[in-house]
Amino acid sequence: MNTTDTLKITGAPGTQNIEMTREFNATREQLLAAHTDPDLYAQWVGPDDYEMTINQFEPHHGGGYSFTHRNPEGNEFSFRGVFHGDPTVEGFSQTFEYLGTPGDVFFERFWFEDLGNGRTLLRGVSTAGSEEARDAMMEAMVDGVVDGYAKLDALLESL
Amino acid sequence: MNTTDTLKITGAPGTQNIEMTREFNATREQLLAAHTDPDLYAQWVGPDDYEMTINQFEPHHGGGYSFTHRNPEGNEFSFRGVFHGDPTVEGFSQTFEYLGTPGDVFFERFWFEDLGNGRTLLRGVSTAGSEEARDAMMEAMVDGVVDGYAKLDALLESL
Repeated sequence: MNTTDTLKITGAPGTQNIEMTREFNATREQLLAAHTDPDLYAQWVGPDDYEMTINQFEPHHGGGYSFTHRNPEGNEFSFRGVFHGDPTVEGFSQTFEYLGTPGDVFFERFWFEDLGNGRTLLRGVSTAGSEEARDAMMEAMVDGVVDGYAKLDALLESL
Repeated sequence: MNTTDTLKITGAPGTQNIEMTREFNATREQLLAAHTDPDLYAQWVGPDDYEMTINQFEPHHGGGYSFTHRNPEGNEFSFRGVFHGDPTVEGFSQTFEYLGTPGDVFFERFWFEDLGNGRTLLRGVSTAGSEEARDAMMEAMVDGVVDGYAKLDALLESL
């Protein structure tokens, strides 16, 4: 388990899931906007110092998204997926594929849970096709998630 | 394991996957058509004696599908999902949700593998969010899969 501030990420042995929780000083409506408005989304997703380019972003049932991260050395990392169901203040679901390992597709569910006092718990479960694919993704993504949610904290404060 | 003709369906303990293989007397191109042409799809999917109504069928990356099965007693069972990636003769991937258990979304991968002599192996892996959700779906779906692939055998012979 990795814990930074209120972030918890676990990949329980014998499962294919990455489970994650993170608290935010924001309402569910603000969290929803940060995940479905491409102008906001581009400002916080991914590791620090990576350049983010959104190629497609259609946050509704059947809509697709794709984006590319470019690190300071110029290496590019591209991702794509489709939304399953329409995002709401309750949360959203999507597929997720890193195009560097094509075919290793995750199904991801995110919930926005009202904690009162203007705070929201973001809860996520990302399911891989195998425990091995889950372990590889978790290893690769943790730093980017820590960085991204710190950027999201700052963005939400500025809204 | 359930075996009918060449059908094998397994849900290995400690995984969230339903794994399935089935051989067909057909080419990969014919299997692809049977899974992506709505007029063909409606003729074979689901248990015997169920009426099939396709509401949406857009077999491309980001496209959605939904259909309803109606049994002889008049009970209706509705399903929906979205395609991830474009279907090809190599196979296709999609989300799958039975609307009687909303939120229990599966991610499904299907491969068409050329066996030569005009025969093709259909291989599928359906991944649930939990082992429990996997077990429940497997219990519910086996009869429909057995019936459906028998209907598909007959349909492929008539093409």
